[in-house]
Amino acid sequence: MFEAKLPQAATLKKVVDAIKDLVQDAPFDCSETGMSLQAMDSSHVALVSLKMDVTLFDTYRCDRTINVGLSLATMAKALKCANNDDSCHIRHDDDDHDNVTFTFKDPKKDRTQEVTVRLVDLDNEHLGIPEQEYSVVLQMPSSDFMKTCRDLSMFSDTLCISATKSAIEFSAVGDNGSSKVTYNKSTSLDDDDSSENIVLDVKTPVKINFSIKYMNQFTKATPLGEVVKISMCNDVPVIVEYPFGSDDRSSLSFFLAPKIDDNVKMEA
Amino acid sequence: MFEAKLPQAATLKKVVDAIKDLVQDAPFDCSETGMSLQAMDSSHVALVSLKMDVTLFDTYRCDRTINVGLSLATMAKALKCANNDDSCHIRHDDDDHDNVTFTFKDPKKDRTQEVTVRLVDLDNEHLGIPEQEYSVVLQMPSSDFMKTCRDLSMFSDTLCISATKSAIEFSAVGDNGSSKVTYNKSTSLDDDDSSENIVLDVKTPVKINFSIKYMNQFTKATPLGEVVKISMCNDVPVIVEYPFGSDDRSSLSFFLAPKIDDNVKMEA
Amino acid sequence: MFEAKLPQAATLKKVVDAIKDLVQDAPFDCSETGMSLQAMDSSHVALVSLKMDVTLFDTYRCDRTINVGLSLATMAKALKCANNDDSCHIRHDDDDHDNVTFTFKDPKKDRTQEVTVRLVDLDNEHLGIPEQEYSVVLQMPSSDFMKTCRDLSMFSDTLCISATKSAIEFSAVGDNGSSKVTYNKSTSLDDDDSSENIVLDVKTPVKINFSIKYMNQFTKATPLGEVVKISMCNDVPVIVEYPFGSDDRSSLSFFLAPKIDDNVKMEA
Repeated sequence: MFEAKLPQAATLKKVVDAIKDLVQDAPFDCSETGMSLQAMDSSHVALVSLKMDVTLFDTYRCDRTINVGLSLATMAKALKCANNDDSCHIRHDDDDHDNVTFTFKDPKKDRTQEVTVRLVDLDNEHLGIPEQEYSVVLQMPSSDFMKTCRDLSMFSDTLCISATKSAIEFSAVGDNGSSKVTYNKSTSLDDDDSSENIVLDVKTPVKINFSIKYMNQFTKATPLGEVVKISMCNDVPVIVEYPFGSDDRSSLSFFLAPKIDDNVKMEA
Repeated sequence: MFEAKLPQAATLKKVVDAIKDLVQDAPFDCSETGMSLQAMDSSHVALVSLKMDVTLFDTYRCDRTINVGLSLATMAKALKCANNDDSCHIRHDDDDHDNVTFTFKDPKKDRTQEVTVRLVDLDNEHLGIPEQEYSVVLQMPSSDFMKTCRDLSMFSDTLCISATKSAIEFSAVGDNGSSKVTYNKSTSLDDDDSSENIVLDVKTPVKINFSIKYMNQFTKATPLGEVVKISMCNDVPVIVEYPFGSDDRSSLSFFLAPKIDDNVKMEA
Repeated sequence: MFEAKLPQAATLKKVVDAIKDLVQDAPFDCSETGMSLQAMDSSHVALVSLKMDVTLFDTYRCDRTINVGLSLATMAKALKCANNDDSCHIRHDDDDHDNVTFTFKDPKKDRTQEVTVRLVDLDNEHLGIPEQEYSVVLQMPSSDFMKTCRDLSMFSDTLCISATKSAIEFSAVGDNGSSKVTYNKSTSLDDDDSSENIVLDVKTPVKINFSIKYMNQFTKATPLGEVVKISMCNDVPVIVEYPFGSDDRSSLSFFLAPKIDDNVKMEA
């Protein structure tokens, strides 16, 4: 028996909307510590890693570790039925192991909506992600990161991120034009609204190229949290991480390998 | 001479928008008691019945009963010209019987917009609707009914409505999943905002299947009124009725026969 | 060296959005008195004339008169990067004469976005516009003019404008219906909100037909200013002018020749 209740269905909705275009069917791991998920995107270029900590839930019961394969398209359909303030109760019975049931309840109305979704069979190969020290860790407003990626994709399909001690620069160079966005390290960190700040921690400068198409995909997670954390090191996959939940113990992370191609020369 | 003035063009706009995808050309009956309309949808499955009582109008003059055939697509175009607060004056002169003129006036501006629409020839067979006692009469917020129909259409094209003394359940069963929405009979009817309540009057329980596609069409009338009234009886067409106007003497109703097919078995 | 700073990038964005569907590549003239542009639309029916007076800019430096050819599609892309309150700094260096750089700055954030756009080669034939006395000069809210053109385009592709001393009438006649919008000359000109008024100055009445398609194109300039000024004379191109900037010394104007065809007869 697995049973868990999210105070807001909207949280799961945002998670599913963020990854459903990257991953078709996803193996959710349900254990004592929470729900998690790891999956490569369909073209095996990016890795999605989701962690929904047990603290995210109002009630949580997981008798034994199970793996539940779900079509994200079907989940998105199911979650579309939930209103913004509905709670979401997730249930998987041992004696009905082909289905998962999502129940949405509006606390203010005498209305219950139950959606039962058939499970899909998935090969569940667990991917090891090596621990890594990163040269640059950047925290910035997730909406600014989204806008920057979208703006730069107009001129090129390669995004160059270069970070120095004092500033981070996103740039893209194309045939008709080029674009460059520079964020300076925030001077006052004790600001009122710290989620508006750029927090930049640079051990050694980096300059790396990425596929803008994937970055744009990742920014679909923007509604999940106000801040995005980007960890980089030359020649190593970047982590684009969206922490969420009141204690930030839950997160949706994307891993993407650098792009190594001729475009690099154009920026010399 | 027929001449009538609606205080708000928006009322007629909502009526036309609700039915223009079901019915192409519509024969409007104008008589002393108001304007009315009855028409089958183009595939002859659903019946649309509109009643615009004389109390809906600011001024109303109808010298003799006339029937006016109008293309709903052209009417929709004409009404799109009206601003939300414009009044709508409808005129049909006996000496220009090929046209109807809609005049929109913004009470606050010195602006008048006149749209003249050519009439269409229509066979006007009047349909008799037999009086019927219904086993179940349900009143619910029209927006909830719209959302329920839309949600359930994601998994199946058959909607099952089943009502007992205490609750009404809408369900749909498909290959990838199923969904069920349950509304409990409201306990307090003397609530402040009674339009938010479920009013359920059950003489004998019913369980009937309908085409969700048609139900979704009917819910285009949702902007007309806050409440929808659904009258059901096993093996008899359902009435989905949207009362409107301050005295509820006007209404837009849809009649739809139950669906009798193999899907029923799946829900056993 | 040409260097100019607009307090709001939004101004240039609105200009470019208004004309980018009419004109593909545009030759901007930069001189001591400001930036200007004249261009025929691609089918050589309408003329676009833009005047951005030096008073529109916070800082302005133009060492010598230059002509800068820009693709409006690329400019629109570049300007899409600017946020609403960003300032826009335009720069063209003599030693990098193939490019123009737009720099957007949010005054409240430590963020700079630089977009470099490659110039295009353009034949720059300057068009002489003869001075003309107009029989009718109309000023009206630009949003009303936009709605009127859009409404009338539903029934016909010819717009008839006729003006008398007391009123101006826009009409269109089609096969399924016809439409007519009448604005009466405002009686009180000393109203609080004068931009809501119709100001109609008629020396001799006019009645002229125009292509609605082009008028609809021109109304894309509506976001630029609250008022549109229309100057007409029988058998002479109309001027549809959108003044903008705090001193109205800047403007975007469109010239369109009357339509002379058989539709005129239908309105007799």
